[in-house]
Amino acid sequence: MNDLAGNIYAAGAAYSEDGYVPASQAKISVLDWGFTRSDCTYDVVHVFKGGFFRLEDHLDRFAVSMRKRRLAPPEDRAKLAEILHRCVALTGLQDAYVAMVALRGRPRVGGSRRPADCVNHLVAYALPWIDVMTPEVQARGGHLWIASVPRVPDASFDPTVKNYMWGDLTTGLMEAHDHGFDTAVLCDAQGFVTEGPGFNMFVVKDGKVLTPDRGSLGGITRMSVLELCGLEGIPAEIAPIPRALLEDADEVFTATTAGGVMPISRVGSRILGNDRPGPLSAKLRELYWRKHEEGWHRTPVRYELAHA
Amino acid sequence: MNDLAGNIYAAGAAYSEDGYVPASQAKISVLDWGFTRSDCTYDVVHVFKGGFFRLEDHLDRFAVSMRKRRLAPPEDRAKLAEILHRCVALTGLQDAYVAMVALRGRPRVGGSRRPADCVNHLVAYALPWIDVMTPEVQARGGHLWIASVPRVPDASFDPTVKNYMWGDLTTGLMEAHDHGFDTAVLCDAQGFVTEGPGFNMFVVKDGKVLTPDRGSLGGITRMSVLELCGLEGIPAEIAPIPRALLEDADEVFTATTAGGVMPISRVGSRILGNDRPGPLSAKLRELYWRKHEEGWHRTPVRYELAHA
Repeated sequence: MNDLAGNIYAAGAAYSEDGYVPASQAKISVLDWGFTRSDCTYDVVHVFKGGFFRLEDHLDRFAVSMRKRRLAPPEDRAKLAEILHRCVALTGLQDAYVAMVALRGRPRVGGSRRPADCVNHLVAYALPWIDVMTPEVQARGGHLWIASVPRVPDASFDPTVKNYMWGDLTTGLMEAHDHGFDTAVLCDAQGFVTEGPGFNMFVVKDGKVLTPDRGSLGGITRMSVLELCGLEGIPAEIAPIPRALLEDADEVFTATTAGGVMPISRVGSRILGNDRPGPLSAKLRELYWRKHEEGWHRTPVRYELAHA
Repeated sequence: MNDLAGNIYAAGAAYSEDGYVPASQAKISVLDWGFTRSDCTYDVVHVFKGGFFRLEDHLDRFAVSMRKRRLAPPEDRAKLAEILHRCVALTGLQDAYVAMVALRGRPRVGGSRRPADCVNHLVAYALPWIDVMTPEVQARGGHLWIASVPRVPDASFDPTVKNYMWGDLTTGLMEAHDHGFDTAVLCDAQGFVTEGPGFNMFVVKDGKVLTPDRGSLGGITRMSVLELCGLEGIPAEIAPIPRALLEDADEVFTATTAGGVMPISRVGSRILGNDRPGPLSAKLRELYWRKHEEGWHRTPVRYELAHA
């Protein structure tokens, strides 16, 4: 299986109702409520040089999300972890993007419109690592568009439940691309900064690191950044961030599993500092990956499961 | 194909990237952005006694939704219509629920995070007719729960673009079931009535028929009800409906393609009239189906396409 020359899983391996298959062949029914009602939750953990990063934290968050949405696929936590290990093992990848999705499924009996009547199920897959922003964009700093569309309010859908309902984020992303920007951030209807398509926001002002207290996923990379700030004695806080503070920031960076700490060099028409990543952002980014090298929060992948 | 005894499509026929398949076998990739970002739009038209109802109106709405979301699958309108006819023809069904979905797909080149780089595609399927509310519930009138969760605001996502981002609606539906109700309606954050999971709302007060002017799909059945009111000389209006007006209504009914005009007999703890469908609701429901029998807005299904 780990013979890359002949490994059918080299481009990705998935687990679904069909068992283990190459990721490109993993499918769900067009009738699955996980699709037709976006009635699902997911999580993404990454593998760096053969080890999962904060696997238990991701499994914790996924468990909370599933409980909140009353999703209960048959696989327990130990089985889920084994599946994630095995997906990575099948690919043989040392660096990977690993997703788990719990879907509502379809009703046990035809005609039911009740979520409680559905057979929930799990999908998981490991893919070759892809950054949310290319390494080139990260080096110069991302250009961030402030979207005109307000983020869906927390009251309508709990943003700490990681979900695929990206309509507002996609609108913001298309606006960003229309204006020649790399990506977008959304503010809520009250004008406070929330998050972007797939990442948490950070603002640096007067030596202090701030991340929004609303409209945002409880990001694992966000948590890691806050921990790193603690280790380095950098003041950091989860707080309301008015749009004006974002536009007047000394530095801005984003955080996501699929990219880590990613500096921003432009916010709308404003050029930050010297149009390059700010010093604190660059320091946190460097530290984030150095700590990875040192085995921080690392769970070695059980590559032997490729032969299970 | 129309020999029901041996028709593999009798339980539903679908069109997708795999061509025509039984509906239960129609699948999409777990990596499709139509799933992982709910980046898609859809429409549903019904077939009654061998004829589509308002097919052109559904195709019009679907075209507008696709344009608004910049989705452009390769099939043109004529081809799409042919696909819908053929899906129904393959099943041989005289009464059917017929869906069309335009999905973002996946990027042409790996690693892109740009919606514009994706290969859009179309899925369509015909299934045996299923009412949103069972005939028994429709006869006694549905029991409607007013959800605690506010509807996603129009500013965050245009509700006239029919979409699968049902998180708030599903929360409301689960609340309704928890309390022993059939279904739910959501109000917006300002306390105005919007819609429920899969249907538009109507309120009757002092002989006047009202339907919300916000937070709602531009429903084809809703449009039909307004036309019927015009034909019958019943005053009808698209207007803001405060929650108090819903709770104080003389009659309440819902409207959807998958069920038509469906009367409500209870709203929260309030019992309407004699705990049965109100007279105007019952009249409109009867008229809606009688007009179907008379061939109103009817396009005969091209069953010969089963043999194409």
